Amino acid sequence: MVRQRRPTITDVARAAGVSKGAVSFALNGRPGVAEETRQRILAAAKELGWTPSHRARALSASRAFAVGLVLARPPELLGVDPFFPAFIAGVERVLAERNQALVLQVVTSQRAEEDGYRRLAADGRVDGVFLLDLRVADPRIALLKQLRLPAVTLGRPDVASPFPAVLVDDRPGITAAVSHLVELGHRHVAHVAGPEHFLHGAARRDAWEGALRAAGLPPGPCVPSDFSAAGGARATRQLLDLADPPSAIIYANDLMAMAGMAVARERGIDVPGGLSVTGFDDTELAAHLSPALTSVRTDPSGWGGVAARTLLDLIDGDGVADVEMPPAQLVVRASTAAPPPTPHQAP
Amino acid sequence: MVRQRRPTITDVARAAGVSKGAVSFALNGRPGVAEETRQRILAAAKELGWTPSHRARALSASRAFAVGLVLARPPELLGVDPFFPAFIAGVERVLAERNQALVLQVVTSQRAEEDGYRRLAADGRVDGVFLLDLRVADPRIALLKQLRLPAVTLGRPDVASPFPAVLVDDRPGITAAVSHLVELGHRHVAHVAGPEHFLHGAARRDAWEGALRAAGLPPGPCVPSDFSAAGGARATRQLLDLADPPSAIIYANDLMAMAGMAVARERGIDVPGGLSVTGFDDTELAAHLSPALTSVRTDPSGWGGVAARTLLDLIDGDGVADVEMPPAQLVVRASTAAPPPTPHQAP
Repeated sequence: MVRQRRPTITDVARAAGVSKGAVSFALNGRPGVAEETRQRILAAAKELGWTPSHRARALSASRAFAVGLVLARPPELLGVDPFFPAFIAGVERVLAERNQALVLQVVTSQRAEEDGYRRLAADGRVDGVFLLDLRVADPRIALLKQLRLPAVTLGRPDVASPFPAVLVDDRPGITAAVSHLVELGHRHVAHVAGPEHFLHGAARRDAWEGALRAAGLPPGPCVPSDFSAAGGARATRQLLDLADPPSAIIYANDLMAMAGMAVARERGIDVPGGLSVTGFDDTELAAHLSPALTSVRTDPSGWGGVAARTLLDLIDGDGVADVEMPPAQLVVRASTAAPPPTPHQAP
Repeated sequence: MVRQRRPTITDVARAAGVSKGAVSFALNGRPGVAEETRQRILAAAKELGWTPSHRARALSASRAFAVGLVLARPPELLGVDPFFPAFIAGVERVLAERNQALVLQVVTSQRAEEDGYRRLAADGRVDGVFLLDLRVADPRIALLKQLRLPAVTLGRPDVASPFPAVLVDDRPGITAAVSHLVELGHRHVAHVAGPEHFLHGAARRDAWEGALRAAGLPPGPCVPSDFSAAGGARATRQLLDLADPPSAIIYANDLMAMAGMAVARERGIDVPGGLSVTGFDDTELAAHLSPALTSVRTDPSGWGGVAARTLLDLIDGDGVADVEMPPAQLVVRASTAAPPPTPHQAP
């Protein structure tokens, strides 16, 4: 745990004979500091080797040698979402190498989530955080900026962000699922989406819609849901109740797809004979269902490792860029087949 | 975060003019300290208000205001095990109330797990830890004792333990599942067990065996497995390949039961008409399968909350006792029914 101590704003202030606030103002180029003082501060900072990239560390008295993760999901969903444990395992592998710890918070509301970040920052428990489940116009970007908490986002926010992003493109996986179904002869492909306020939910929906349009087909109905089995079952019933039900459904995760397969079975609809189904996540169970579930595979553990390395490099003051991970890939199994001859196959 | 500092062993040693080791020996009543010295040490300890219940804190220079959890499970299993996220959510609820943090480590081997505890202790990152997935003759009990890390065990170890235990009795749930199947007419009830080195795996197996014997029936075959879908599928194939296959299978978790149902379906065996199946955990998906899965429900989130309160009380030096949680309960759904008339019903 012994590291060479890097210069802090306090050191610069002491060397220049000014307050910490004056240093902060001067280094940020904000008005309110006389030019002579400003020059003295900059000279002191240069002399000490202080650079803006050290600011994150410099703002806290010491390093926590830990990073934080705040998960805002209902526990019953966390329990069935294979992403988080695999992601965390990938993070931990890198943290262990560098003798860093992970501080985890599981919260159940957006408000509690923001309090979580505030608490992590106020207590100086972590040197940086991961930002998962990016939302539309995500308010956490501004919050973390305000809290001066270094962060890495999983995916690219739709608002200006000062933080590096580690990206996995979900879209090629969904696009491949649509192409696979279209090649099998499907013309009426519906989507059961994840929560619409999540960017990844929206990205999967957009990919589904875009791929159908590219194939010259009108997107079938889209039902927004919540990634739970109950939500997936409900959305599937809605779709199957339609006067013109889809011949295939692309689900935004495996859990909803599994519940959807059960709903079809209860109604006497054979999967894949009467309804083709695809999932997303490629959970361990997917390959062991009957029929085995066609799904889209990403590498959450690899993603976690790269995100951890990027965050630690950022905290260390190294220059870091966005990192693009291999895109999501379709895994074809037995839950997809040609559509029934009527009524959907006719254009 | 300001708390009144409590007396440490160092304080006692200083007041008595002896080494910390001598204090430790004297306070633990171990030989090697002259009686006069011992009396002086005890007097100093009394004078300073040091009590054994403060030892945990006293041994570290300061408190971390955090607790630790080391999970040793393959990530792909963590991703499908609903227990941990729900347990962690329950822990977090209590930690948030008391402004404590959770430091999580996910490791993939028993060796890495022990290193994890050593690291947590050496870095002073946590004031105490949760001990999950107790194993037969669990070496972590001695390790944590040696590391002087306060701990709460989930379940009661089969070795002498200085740590409070928070208990959920799995057995009534399994016993109820066996009774339910016996009442339906099953005489040949098999078990697909969890890993045998886990005490909870062994407890579920023993409950299955005991309940069958109590009903005057010979326990059907038991196949030890690993809680994974792949393992559940493999074990189910083994059982169905037997010359005299069981008419019902009690699985040690839902995931293995779900994979088992798929294996039966692939072989043209109707569930529950040709094979009854029960799970354990009552995952969210269990109610949304076709047929819906009969399972055993516990309350991992409530368990996490009580475990966290117990651990924090222990760290605070309060006297804590073992806590018994409500036992596991059977939830009957559609995956269990009377056995087929032949060949299993005949005694």
